[in-house]
Amino acid sequence: MATPMPAARRATRIEPFQVMSILERAKALEAQGRDVIHMEVGEPRFPLPAALVEAARRAVAEESMGYTPSAGLPALRQAIATRYGERYGLDIDPARVLVTPGGSGALQLALGSVLDISDGVLVTDPGYPCHRHMAVMVGADVRTLPLDAGDAWRLDAAQVSAHWGESVRALLLASPANPTGAVVDVDSMRRIHARVRALGGVLIVDETYQGLVYEVEDHTALACGSDVAVVNSLSKYFGLTGWRLGWLVAPEGYAGVAERLAQNLYLAPPTLAQHVALAALGPELAGEFERRRALLRRRRDLLFQGLTELGFGMAAKPDGAFYLFASLPPRWGDGLRFARELLEREAVAVTPGSDFGSGACQGILRIAYTAEDARLREALVRLRRFLRAD
Amino acid sequence: MATPMPAARRATRIEPFQVMSILERAKALEAQGRDVIHMEVGEPRFPLPAALVEAARRAVAEESMGYTPSAGLPALRQAIATRYGERYGLDIDPARVLVTPGGSGALQLALGSVLDISDGVLVTDPGYPCHRHMAVMVGADVRTLPLDAGDAWRLDAAQVSAHWGESVRALLLASPANPTGAVVDVDSMRRIHARVRALGGVLIVDETYQGLVYEVEDHTALACGSDVAVVNSLSKYFGLTGWRLGWLVAPEGYAGVAERLAQNLYLAPPTLAQHVALAALGPELAGEFERRRALLRRRRDLLFQGLTELGFGMAAKPDGAFYLFASLPPRWGDGLRFARELLEREAVAVTPGSDFGSGACQGILRIAYTAEDARLREALVRLRRFLRAD
Repeated sequence: MATPMPAARRATRIEPFQVMSILERAKALEAQGRDVIHMEVGEPRFPLPAALVEAARRAVAEESMGYTPSAGLPALRQAIATRYGERYGLDIDPARVLVTPGGSGALQLALGSVLDISDGVLVTDPGYPCHRHMAVMVGADVRTLPLDAGDAWRLDAAQVSAHWGESVRALLLASPANPTGAVVDVDSMRRIHARVRALGGVLIVDETYQGLVYEVEDHTALACGSDVAVVNSLSKYFGLTGWRLGWLVAPEGYAGVAERLAQNLYLAPPTLAQHVALAALGPELAGEFERRRALLRRRRDLLFQGLTELGFGMAAKPDGAFYLFASLPPRWGDGLRFARELLEREAVAVTPGSDFGSGACQGILRIAYTAEDARLREALVRLRRFLRAD
Repeated sequence: MATPMPAARRATRIEPFQVMSILERAKALEAQGRDVIHMEVGEPRFPLPAALVEAARRAVAEESMGYTPSAGLPALRQAIATRYGERYGLDIDPARVLVTPGGSGALQLALGSVLDISDGVLVTDPGYPCHRHMAVMVGADVRTLPLDAGDAWRLDAAQVSAHWGESVRALLLASPANPTGAVVDVDSMRRIHARVRALGGVLIVDETYQGLVYEVEDHTALACGSDVAVVNSLSKYFGLTGWRLGWLVAPEGYAGVAERLAQNLYLAPPTLAQHVALAALGPELAGEFERRRALLRRRRDLLFQGLTELGFGMAAKPDGAFYLFASLPPRWGDGLRFARELLEREAVAVTPGSDFGSGACQGILRIAYTAEDARLREALVRLRRFLRAD
């Protein structure tokens, strides 16, 4: 029977991620016995540390698995605030910290507490597609701020002014960025913040990849002032993807509104994940997470060199996250076609750049370096064979 | 330092739940050593069954705690579809089932895939306040459909027609309902569905309290046709509140759009909770959940009789959920004032009806009967003393 009513236009206009068809095909190939190298998914591959397995097993038996407060367990809010003190020398009021279901929940709170219907919000192109789609779903007017491969996809304050419009109320940017790995340095962030404030807007910085930086200074936009909204996640640096936990540091004066939104949009973040997060933020595992960061840095270097030798184009070695955003070698035009053929012939899965941006992104791939060194080397061998065979 | 920009008007207009101030005060009293009886929170108080503790402990050690597919683990989608077959005799395609972060996630998908900006959506008054607030946050035009205490807060098809307007695209109702406990029976649901369809709209039914019905038939609006959207949760019947897991059964043809929304709004539901849900839906615990239902029924009867004797007004004994929605005895006007004084003097926490609706709801309380029998009896003793003392 046909559905009498079609789905909402706004929602149907959200393009599916191309990578989903890549993923599906990769699974089908694996089911046929092919050895697929996964470089398409933004997920660290490290096992859950034994201390966190144990923390989860203890909490599920000993703690209440009922609702926590909407803003999260007070001890966890405090632990997050304390982390800003210890790592970044900032005094953040725990009342500004809301624990959320993933970084996604924090983005919903940030966008929802800043934007009214038809308010403009600036997002980067390329950028994390959920940013713009989530903004569309709260009824905002999404405007894109084009970044340039030649500038290594870096944003500066002048671009913000050039693309600001009368109805724009916020700039949402990620640093370190997905898909480019670009990091906005401390000085640039201060200039961007000053510009946004002067234009009468709110700066929202998605710091989901915070901590995953390799040569540059690890910092936070919260240092710019108490009027910044910062989104973060336990998924990347801490590798807790499936636990779905993140946090928002709300601008001063916004925490009450954000908490009411939390009560209404999702009631509370998952309880057991909060107990696991408390253990993850403790001192015992600090060394383990730093060891992982060093591994990721080595993998980035390995893959960057290999791809460069194969003729892929990158203006600079990206400073953070765990992706390379690499232009196809000359004469290879379309990233999606390249990704599909590469998967069929060499069983290497990568993400087409068109999932993240327009224009030049058609000829770019996002390649995650989360797999082990040996797998990355094998991927380079397969890529070389693929490029030569054509 | 003052924040230069105020928060969004839309978000600041969301009223805080009055019960939050009750809860906060209740905790302060407990910290002073008072013995507070909690009848304000919509949370079953049963312990996590040992089989689920064990399922969680096993899964965290043995399964990947990475992202699952956005629509949830295939085995869980299948288990939910199978449940509709076994319990309600319906053949539901698992492709229509999306596992979500709580019933809240399912509501977001349903509203997001049906409503465009400024589309109208009808919600009941009284009703679950997150329904209207969530609709506001996707930019919908929320219209209320007043229910009547004299009809035991039941909705019928004629009311739907009377309040439909040209821009209205959906009716969102809950059955069993929070706060009233009212259940829309099978025939009424069919009539409501036919009316909504004839008016060119989509029927969205929140069945979060499904299974918690006491004399009437346990049913689902999915039986009305494949164009219905149904929201459900593991929080109430299964008592898994803090795990934050629910599901949407999307209308035929909507699953693809709903899945794209899921990818963008929250990426995926929490992983460990999905393994626990698989165990909760299995045959081993079916008897335990039915035993709990019988306990709740007895508690409802106990509290209904006690409140009636004290002069509280209810048109009928509610058929489902775990709340009584009771008018204050004559000469007690304001529910919020009553709730505050009752808490101070007798340490009994209840929710003012004004959290759920307008008009007559000011003089009503929502009282949860999730506490043990002895606690409910003690609450009645305290209420009697409170009413006499004044």
